[in-house]
Amino acid sequence: MTAHVPGADAAALQAADASSQPGPEGSKPEAAYHAFGCSIFPSSMAPAAEQAGATLQQEEWGDVTYPLLFIQLNQLFSTPAGLEWRETARWIKFEEKVEDGGERWSAPHVPALPLHSLFQLRTCLQKGTVLLDLDAPSFKEIIDKALSRQTEEAELQPELRERLAALLLCQPRHRPTKSLLQLLVELGLSPCRGKAKSWSEPGAQLSKTPLKEQLRNRFKKKVPPGAEAAHVAVGEVEFLEKPFTAFIRLRRGVTLGSLSEVALPSRFLFILLGPRAKVKSYHEVGRAMAMLLTDEVFQRVAWQAEQREDLIAGMEAFLDELTVLPPGKWDPSARIPPPSCLPSPHRRTTAHQPDRQSHGNGDMAAAGDRAGPRHAHSREELERTGRLFGGLLQDIRRKAQWYGSDFSDGLHPQCLSAVLYIYLATVTNAITFGGMLGDATANMQGVLESFLGTAFAGSVFCLFSGQPLTILSSTGPVLVFERLLFSFSQDHGLDYLEFRLWIGLWVAFFGVVLVATEASHLVRYFTRFTEEGFCALISLIFIYDSLKKMLSLADTFPINWQYRLDNVTFYGCICNLSSPGHSSTGNDTPLPSPMAPWQPPAALAMLSRTQCLDQGGHLLGTSCQYVPDVTLFSFLLFGGTFLSCTVLKRFRSSRYFPVGVRKVVSDFAIILAILASCTVDAALGLETPKLLVPSELKPTNPARGWIIFPFGANPWWVCLVSMVPAVLVTILIFMDQQITAVILNRREYKLQKGAGFHLDFLCVSLLMVVTSITGLPWYVSATVISLAHMESLRKESMTSAPGEHPRFLGIREQRLTGLAVFVLTGVSVFMAPILKHIPMPVLYGVFLHMGVAALNSIQLTDRVRLLLMPAKHQPDLAYLRHVPLRRVHLFTIIQLLCLALLWVVKSTMAAIIFPVMLLALVGIRKGLEHIFSLHDLSWLDSLLPETARKEADGKQPRKQQEEESNSEESELMHRRGPEINVSVN
Amino acid sequence: MTAHVPGADAAALQAADASSQPGPEGSKPEAAYHAFGCSIFPSSMAPAAEQAGATLQQEEWGDVTYPLLFIQLNQLFSTPAGLEWRETARWIKFEEKVEDGGERWSAPHVPALPLHSLFQLRTCLQKGTVLLDLDAPSFKEIIDKALSRQTEEAELQPELRERLAALLLCQPRHRPTKSLLQLLVELGLSPCRGKAKSWSEPGAQLSKTPLKEQLRNRFKKKVPPGAEAAHVAVGEVEFLEKPFTAFIRLRRGVTLGSLSEVALPSRFLFILLGPRAKVKSYHEVGRAMAMLLTDEVFQRVAWQAEQREDLIAGMEAFLDELTVLPPGKWDPSARIPPPSCLPSPHRRTTAHQPDRQSHGNGDMAAAGDRAGPRHAHSREELERTGRLFGGLLQDIRRKAQWYGSDFSDGLHPQCLSAVLYIYLATVTNAITFGGMLGDATANMQGVLESFLGTAFAGSVFCLFSGQPLTILSSTGPVLVFERLLFSFSQDHGLDYLEFRLWIGLWVAFFGVVLVATEASHLVRYFTRFTEEGFCALISLIFIYDSLKKMLSLADTFPINWQYRLDNVTFYGCICNLSSPGHSSTGNDTPLPSPMAPWQPPAALAMLSRTQCLDQGGHLLGTSCQYVPDVTLFSFLLFGGTFLSCTVLKRFRSSRYFPVGVRKVVSDFAIILAILASCTVDAALGLETPKLLVPSELKPTNPARGWIIFPFGANPWWVCLVSMVPAVLVTILIFMDQQITAVILNRREYKLQKGAGFHLDFLCVSLLMVVTSITGLPWYVSATVISLAHMESLRKESMTSAPGEHPRFLGIREQRLTGLAVFVLTGVSVFMAPILKHIPMPVLYGVFLHMGVAALNSIQLTDRVRLLLMPAKHQPDLAYLRHVPLRRVHLFTIIQLLCLALLWVVKSTMAAIIFPVMLLALVGIRKGLEHIFSLHDLSWLDSLLPETARKEADGKQPRKQQEEESNSEESELMHRRGPEINVSVN
Repeated sequence: MTAHVPGADAAALQAADASSQPGPEGSKPEAAYHAFGCSIFPSSMAPAAEQAGATLQQEEWGDVTYPLLFIQLNQLFSTPAGLEWRETARWIKFEEKVEDGGERWSAPHVPALPLHSLFQLRTCLQKGTVLLDLDAPSFKEIIDKALSRQTEEAELQPELRERLAALLLCQPRHRPTKSLLQLLVELGLSPCRGKAKSWSEPGAQLSKTPLKEQLRNRFKKKVPPGAEAAHVAVGEVEFLEKPFTAFIRLRRGVTLGSLSEVALPSRFLFILLGPRAKVKSYHEVGRAMAMLLTDEVFQRVAWQAEQREDLIAGMEAFLDELTVLPPGKWDPSARIPPPSCLPSPHRRTTAHQPDRQSHGNGDMAAAGDRAGPRHAHSREELERTGRLFGGLLQDIRRKAQWYGSDFSDGLHPQCLSAVLYIYLATVTNAITFGGMLGDATANMQGVLESFLGTAFAGSVFCLFSGQPLTILSSTGPVLVFERLLFSFSQDHGLDYLEFRLWIGLWVAFFGVVLVATEASHLVRYFTRFTEEGFCALISLIFIYDSLKKMLSLADTFPINWQYRLDNVTFYGCICNLSSPGHSSTGNDTPLPSPMAPWQPPAALAMLSRTQCLDQGGHLLGTSCQYVPDVTLFSFLLFGGTFLSCTVLKRFRSSRYFPVGVRKVVSDFAIILAILASCTVDAALGLETPKLLVPSELKPTNPARGWIIFPFGANPWWVCLVSMVPAVLVTILIFMDQQITAVILNRREYKLQKGAGFHLDFLCVSLLMVVTSITGLPWYVSATVISLAHMESLRKESMTSAPGEHPRFLGIREQRLTGLAVFVLTGVSVFMAPILKHIPMPVLYGVFLHMGVAALNSIQLTDRVRLLLMPAKHQPDLAYLRHVPLRRVHLFTIIQLLCLALLWVVKSTMAAIIFPVMLLALVGIRKGLEHIFSLHDLSWLDSLLPETARKEADGKQPRKQQEEESNSEESELMHRRGPEINVSVN
Repeated sequence: MTAHVPGADAAALQAADASSQPGPEGSKPEAAYHAFGCSIFPSSMAPAAEQAGATLQQEEWGDVTYPLLFIQLNQLFSTPAGLEWRETARWIKFEEKVEDGGERWSAPHVPALPLHSLFQLRTCLQKGTVLLDLDAPSFKEIIDKALSRQTEEAELQPELRERLAALLLCQPRHRPTKSLLQLLVELGLSPCRGKAKSWSEPGAQLSKTPLKEQLRNRFKKKVPPGAEAAHVAVGEVEFLEKPFTAFIRLRRGVTLGSLSEVALPSRFLFILLGPRAKVKSYHEVGRAMAMLLTDEVFQRVAWQAEQREDLIAGMEAFLDELTVLPPGKWDPSARIPPPSCLPSPHRRTTAHQPDRQSHGNGDMAAAGDRAGPRHAHSREELERTGRLFGGLLQDIRRKAQWYGSDFSDGLHPQCLSAVLYIYLATVTNAITFGGMLGDATANMQGVLESFLGTAFAGSVFCLFSGQPLTILSSTGPVLVFERLLFSFSQDHGLDYLEFRLWIGLWVAFFGVVLVATEASHLVRYFTRFTEEGFCALISLIFIYDSLKKMLSLADTFPINWQYRLDNVTFYGCICNLSSPGHSSTGNDTPLPSPMAPWQPPAALAMLSRTQCLDQGGHLLGTSCQYVPDVTLFSFLLFGGTFLSCTVLKRFRSSRYFPVGVRKVVSDFAIILAILASCTVDAALGLETPKLLVPSELKPTNPARGWIIFPFGANPWWVCLVSMVPAVLVTILIFMDQQITAVILNRREYKLQKGAGFHLDFLCVSLLMVVTSITGLPWYVSATVISLAHMESLRKESMTSAPGEHPRFLGIREQRLTGLAVFVLTGVSVFMAPILKHIPMPVLYGVFLHMGVAALNSIQLTDRVRLLLMPAKHQPDLAYLRHVPLRRVHLFTIIQLLCLALLWVVKSTMAAIIFPVMLLALVGIRKGLEHIFSLHDLSWLDSLLPETARKEADGKQPRKQQEEESNSEESELMHRRGPEINVSVN
């Protein structure tokens, strides 16, 4: 891919130079116009834009901040009762219209405007009155001054002036924002044709003080404190013969009584009244003025302008940045929804050209100014000190200073709801993983152990770790490994728990060694490729296992598919005690044929299955080995749980109910689904397989105690041999813990108190000692719950303009919420009587959901889907714009092959080495650099640190920054993928 | 709603006048620019635009048609091997870009452009070379002439000229459109870093003849025959000191060898080469030129221009119509997908102002020019003649002239696939409705009758009806009525079939009376309100019935919820022959308690259930009344069928696989779902309840014969009394038949051969006689199948520009396809051995799907959903823009109340009068005019004919036309709602 760029860098740099070079020409509007077209002829910059740019650069951007503007458009309507002002639109950042009928605000949208009206507006500004820094205490005086300071050619007769002033002072009709409740009440009160009561009488005079409805207006909470108002008033007036235009800036913000919808001090006014013409024109010119005032760059011009020409120049600069849509290719009545991320105004003034569309040879300058996006957030925490435990000491030093505030910062109401939410998620996880672990290890570790272990390990971690926002949990990879370890132990006649104890001790030792040698910095080599391989494998295992478990139910509870209704009399099962010699042949005793009348054996006794088998009998009959209904009902429960999890999770993005309700439902989706399924199961009362929980506080499997002794059950050399699997577990734990830690400590979360990678890993390692000795599950950071934890502790700006997303301020970093969650989890050990009602198929359903959700969240899945899509139906993904499709497909296929290899390794006897295979992904990723260009890899994956550095030095093409720096919000959205990624662990 | 408009009409009319009034000023570009801003000051029209408008109005629009233009943008790139031309974008109507990497075309999108580059383009046109009607046979000569006819100030040295000419004659690199297959082959051939082979060598000379890859290009099929090419070539050239610009129109279209991507004659060329500057600028100016050339209005200007000034004026007119988007509120790299409907260019030249956003008091002129949209299509077919059978005679006269062509027009390959598709749909319907009817009438009418009746009635209707595109079928309302009738007969001890015969005869009589009195014109009073009430009721009945049927399975095949695994030995069932006296007590014989050892009764015999009951025995035991697994498995089948129907139906709008595959899957969704479920059922072999089909050609129920005798079983007065239910059935049949007929004969289907409402209804009535006598089901038009039939016979324009929808040309109106479908259906009677494998739960699943799909397709459902949405999350629906939310909610609530009332009537003993209640909806709709304004009703519903007329006279505000006339395509989309509407009948 080196072929198509050589000349571009130089050209782009030159272009960047050109835009900061001062324009030689004057700033008369006419000249400006002619200069417009010239920039491709040598003197390359439009001087008007130039001037506005210069005005802005006089002071550093951000030095002076101006109040936010709320802009209101009032339009004159003629009603049978006379002329009347009505609010028809408003802006903070995006446009909201009053819909036809005047009772509803449209959704915020990007204002689209005919170009024509902008030109008309320019004429208005050129010819009309412009009063800058007017000093007037009331709307009446403002109008009087504006009318008296007309330019000569636009001079009005005194009589007209009075009529105009009277007209302008009429009370406008606003459309207050109402809650659904208020709306329904109104519906009840006035179901018939009548108008809503809140309209004021037409023709009433403007009130001097704000009206009650202004103060009560629910829209006010969208307007940040300190905001000021701008009014645009347009309309056609029969008695005028020439238009009256005025642009007014007040010296001080003045509250103009009931003029605006919300009671704010007003700063700008724009009035356009004219004779009968095209009504639309006035309206559109008013919108053009409002659109101009919403522009951050023009706002500064409007605040600083000292004369009319400054305004015009600002407008030229604005025009220069406009995007146009052709007529006839686009439905002009379509409303464009606000984009999820926006270029900052800062960027616009510096870059100035809206060259965001990369096109073969644009935007390749500015490449080397930042290290890779994935590696930038690994900041100083992952720098090597070169000393033993140097990183750990730095971590402790960094975190110690915050330890006090870690507790005081937790005293906030938001933390309470976070505790409840995370508590439920943790308990769900403890139940599901506990159930699966119990299944995998013949209940050597069961639900009770899971609860105790989670509570203990979690609390300790919260108190001493480097990043207390992390939530420890059993994770998928560890579960997979435990399953392998258990079957290995069984196959080779080893005592599982004792073997595991040694492994745990070795892992802890290796962990401390890794901490000492600052190995955590290696995590920077795990790119998306590695993460996705890891995640996809775990997800597939979850999906495969839950389905396999469900199918194996059909073995445990076999269905008699050959059952015939008519033969109901032939089915039966009796206990045969008479011939114990036969019992060894099992249940395959031939049944009496329907032909020969059935003679019950002599020793037939009325005993239950257990009694019968206890007494040495065996079961005899056509229905003995079958269990009716249980399997099929389990499948219904399984499917139902899976579907309801999925549907409830997706409820967040539906349109129904307010955001808060949706969020709660979606956050609690899994617990709700479990509850619903359990209720159905309990109501119907079928004997489905249930979760096994001990009713007392003793190990789930009675064969084990609370303390595992290191010697006794196994040969002595096992303690040495276990070093080998310990290496594998160490790799696994290291990858699992550190990938999560890196994700949590990403720059975009704006964490203030810093990370502690080494300290975290030390905690995890030391906890391994305790959990191994007590035979509790092993714990590492769980990505999804930890992210949910951070999400529930987000600090956001309180107000945001309609259509704009609230600004993210940071996370409440503290140790209290985590601690509370784990203390509560510990107390929940006594929930056994409730937990034992949960059917296993429900838990399998939850696991299937987790597997599918995790698989869906990674980019690999998107790319696999691309394989099935014809090119023209593919979504407009960033990497598809930049990487040829066949390279994308090739990358996908290589990933799939790696995945298939991992699967094969996992499924054969080599299973136990699969952590090493995971690590091998890093090597394969390195090898990919020989097949793919760095440019392609930077889009499909991230670059490895050394190549990124090399590249930054050599100024190779890399464009990910462009996308990355777009906005932190988008970064957040974008990254949500590879992190949910590890969502099953 | 009369308050806010009075002045508007006049103003709008005045505005319309203004736009056709010739501009007094000259057309010099400078003057034009200044005039831009003036239109709100009295002399209200930009003269440049005016002039272009005049140019266009010289000849009537549509008189001269110009070839379609294919526009290609070639851009100069510098590579290590030297300069190279590459195609970077192309246009027919929308823009397609070559993505970064040069191997992929982007999806078509609306071209968005910086305003700046349009101004630069204008300068280019003003200063550069303009050659109109150049006569040159090859690209070389064109370039030579262009270079030699430079204006003086732009004159180039001869040496530079040569270098330029050589540069321009280089072969450009195209990006041929490739199929997925070709792509995968390439991937296999060159998986490594190498370039695709299809690139030509850089620096090669332009070939004189089209290259192989040009001719093979798959894009060609998107370009209609007769299209011509326009080339835009831009780039920066180091050796130039001033830019070289040329706009060239050729006198004749000339194929310029391998210049363009597809081998088309070229007509326009635009060349812009300049010194090093901002590379982006050249590219954007090139795009601006291309965008200008895609504009229908500017195209005419470009074809007709006689001098440079004409082009500039055309461009001014274009500028005047542009829509602008503000900077910083919108992500300029976002690609706007092509809208589904577009204003026609015709409209643009006449209306000229892009005032499409209705805003309180715009666009209310042009209101009365058309009758209501729903009634316009009832054209002359529904006009009263005032004579007995007048309408019928007219129908026959109208249709007779087409009778010959009705057969010859059917000889087209498309008809074959239509036959297959509709045959499958008909058979599915016959099976499902047959099954339901059999269920409802104790198999008096079963699947066999359904097949025979469908085949007979359908063929007759196809041969003699007025609208042979209609497909007859059993429908939901008739099914509901049959169910009611059957239970009524049973409750009152009447013979169902004989009673039904008389009803049928009476209905036929009433039908003929209705035809004679031309009652069909009354259907114009059925507005959306009526249709939706009708449809929602039927859908709910379908949903309710299928669920009820499923739940009743649990009664037929009871589940032993108390079954305990351990007690397997306690369950059994034996035949007790000994005490026939006991058999009357049923199966509730107490079971031996587990405590007392179970002693088998003496007379216990090994007989099957049937044998036992036949021999007068009774069943004794704990498991006699239970059937294992069947019910739960039925639920799994039911859910599975429903989900797979839904998923497969939705597959059409997914992104996977080519459109053709998706369409087939979606079209055959139901048959595929049935097949899949049947396969699963057959593979597992459980004894689920199956569809009852006789294996021989005899009535399903052995108690009836093929001919129903009018007297005998019932008292004689039944033949008179049956007149009362006959009135009800007549209402039902009339509504069902005519609503469908109106939908099918809508204007937007562009039917050439006219409708035959009276003739259709006569056919249906007369068929009632035959089907009643033979005891076959009654048939009326089925909306959904008929629409599918028409859909599969659509004629569409063969080519369409990327991003544009193919143009709809009409329907293949003929009688052959329908006839073939019904003949095939008749032959399928012998499919009984296959049909009897279909489990009933599968059919119930299909019916649930049909009910849910129909309910989802009506606007009422959308409005019910709105009740649950906070205002700001509601979608941007047309009626929400124009009707206050509380009026919308009120309308919805009234509809829901009507629906509840209908449901209550249907569920109580008054059930049989429910057709009358349906008719009452029309009255309620009339009453709504006292609660809602006509304006609101015109958005939420349609207007009744008389109010529509009144309104058209009085010029009341009505805006539906605006939406309706938008495009026929959108009309079609919009109408798909209320018609699928009746989708269950």
